Amino acid sequence: MKGAVLHGPYDVRFEERADPTIVEPTDAIIRLSASCICGSDLWPYRGANPVKEPAPMGHEYCGIVEEVGRDVRTVKKGQFVVGSFFASDDTCPNCQHGYQTSCMQRAPVVGAQAPYLRVPLADGTLVATAEVPSPEMIPSLLAVSDVLGTGWFAADAANVKRGSTVAVVGDGAVGLLAVLSAKCMGAERIIAMSRHETRQRLAREFGATDIVTARGEEGSARIKELTNGVGADAVLECVGTQESMWQAISATRPGGYVSYVGVPHGVQLDGAKLFFTHTHLHGGPAPVRRYLPDLMDLVLDGSIEPGKVFDLTLPLDQVAEGYRAMDERRAIKTLLRTT
Amino acid sequence: MKGAVLHGPYDVRFEERADPTIVEPTDAIIRLSASCICGSDLWPYRGANPVKEPAPMGHEYCGIVEEVGRDVRTVKKGQFVVGSFFASDDTCPNCQHGYQTSCMQRAPVVGAQAPYLRVPLADGTLVATAEVPSPEMIPSLLAVSDVLGTGWFAADAANVKRGSTVAVVGDGAVGLLAVLSAKCMGAERIIAMSRHETRQRLAREFGATDIVTARGEEGSARIKELTNGVGADAVLECVGTQESMWQAISATRPGGYVSYVGVPHGVQLDGAKLFFTHTHLHGGPAPVRRYLPDLMDLVLDGSIEPGKVFDLTLPLDQVAEGYRAMDERRAIKTLLRTT
Repeated sequence: MKGAVLHGPYDVRFEERADPTIVEPTDAIIRLSASCICGSDLWPYRGANPVKEPAPMGHEYCGIVEEVGRDVRTVKKGQFVVGSFFASDDTCPNCQHGYQTSCMQRAPVVGAQAPYLRVPLADGTLVATAEVPSPEMIPSLLAVSDVLGTGWFAADAANVKRGSTVAVVGDGAVGLLAVLSAKCMGAERIIAMSRHETRQRLAREFGATDIVTARGEEGSARIKELTNGVGADAVLECVGTQESMWQAISATRPGGYVSYVGVPHGVQLDGAKLFFTHTHLHGGPAPVRRYLPDLMDLVLDGSIEPGKVFDLTLPLDQVAEGYRAMDERRAIKTLLRTT
Repeated sequence: MKGAVLHGPYDVRFEERADPTIVEPTDAIIRLSASCICGSDLWPYRGANPVKEPAPMGHEYCGIVEEVGRDVRTVKKGQFVVGSFFASDDTCPNCQHGYQTSCMQRAPVVGAQAPYLRVPLADGTLVATAEVPSPEMIPSLLAVSDVLGTGWFAADAANVKRGSTVAVVGDGAVGLLAVLSAKCMGAERIIAMSRHETRQRLAREFGATDIVTARGEEGSARIKELTNGVGADAVLECVGTQESMWQAISATRPGGYVSYVGVPHGVQLDGAKLFFTHTHLHGGPAPVRRYLPDLMDLVLDGSIEPGKVFDLTLPLDQVAEGYRAMDERRAIKTLLRTT
């Protein structure tokens, strides 16, 4: 089969890779209904993480089970399934506490920008639907796999509740779906921080009540202004830089909550400074598996349409253009057709 | 009157100071029933914070109201009151959210190692008892003012609940009372980290089920061992150094809670490292005012005796010896008799 492989900065190639096979008896092989490019793929694409050897790309997926290993019990050939970017057994203490991305058997899922994918720990990792969904559901079900699950965790980790005043730092796909998540959780006021018109429009469609275009200290000051000098109850940090992190912390009221869901790059937090902000801080790799069943139901019953974040659709063989479009912010998120 | 004044590192003097007077119409003057020395007083005493001019010391207090300003409504002359180290109006949004130490009118209370003290924002800051308590209650009521309130916040901020497995980093008075607090909140297992026999004994008396003497990475590894490789549900950081902070974070299970209640000195948190621990982090100057009414009741009805942390009692004029004893760890906490 052919799939996306990163060779170095700005060098993604669509090239021949070995077909995935069952390696462990707990594996499954799935045929992807669609694939996509993640904001976090841009870090290595832009050279932030060195690429030591050609790296198969992609970790968001949904599709039809083609084959399962001999120890797989609940997942069956022919089912439509959605999974998360870390495989998890869903039984260890960390999984039981709802932190499947810290599963004691955690294994990364890699190479999903391809027609077929090997998923380890299939029983713990994959969630099946009752029926194979219609094609128009695929973008939203694919979004559940990572970008919605991560936005949802951002809202949950920041304790968003009915009536909360929420600010979202970052207008990437995760930030936009964090807005949608906050809306679903009953937030009364949702301030989206964005200076891009198309993203502002989608933020409003997902439930944002206010848009703030200022950034950094000025952005935090604007949030304080909008909240009578107090700060937001919850600020969802969906970028991962030093500036965005302090912007989030500074915009939060004492006793409020800051979540951070993008891998921090170059972030250092001064303990004494953080201490006097009185904020709660929680984040990490989103335990999407915890939310999968509920989020898939919300998609399937038509309550939410997170697939709207895909504003560019390309055939898989044009994956390199998909990266370029996201890198240059011409696209919010690229969906890759695998068929 | 005479009170304690810090002139420079290791130089606390008992010397003449002006009697406090009503400055703002919302002030009260109280006659202290007793005073004491705080672990946090040792930072400037040891020269960690430069002393620019002679500084009246002490911020823990309880006593009898001598005089109130003309705008004071609820606090009355002759009442016995307890207050916290930051004065607060108890009405602003931050106070209403329970973060009185981030009150929008916050004012420090200073100079409590003396016979008399001025307390700003008396109505918001002070909590009165129904009757003047008996002398043997004074040490425990004084402990409520800061050191118990701070230990209680440590347990509360780390989400300690019935059945929790808790570890406490730091065997100072705050750490020991964090053990007591975790016990009161129903923790099933409380691991105290201490290598001092007298402190270990008091920790056990307050409810510790296990003692760990190892520190740093070794200490965290020991907590992991004691919790089947998972980590504690809640770790209460009661020291404020880089080592103790990472010790706390590393000993916590993914999804668990770390609280930190001592002003961090030289603490830098690496964002990416923190991200992958999946911990919740919350702390800051303890909003003791939030807890005062309940904690005073627990003392007055005999449920708890936090005053046991005072293992040295001196007359106020020997305050310098009180500092020395705590600095050299000969005493856990020094009570100063004002009468």
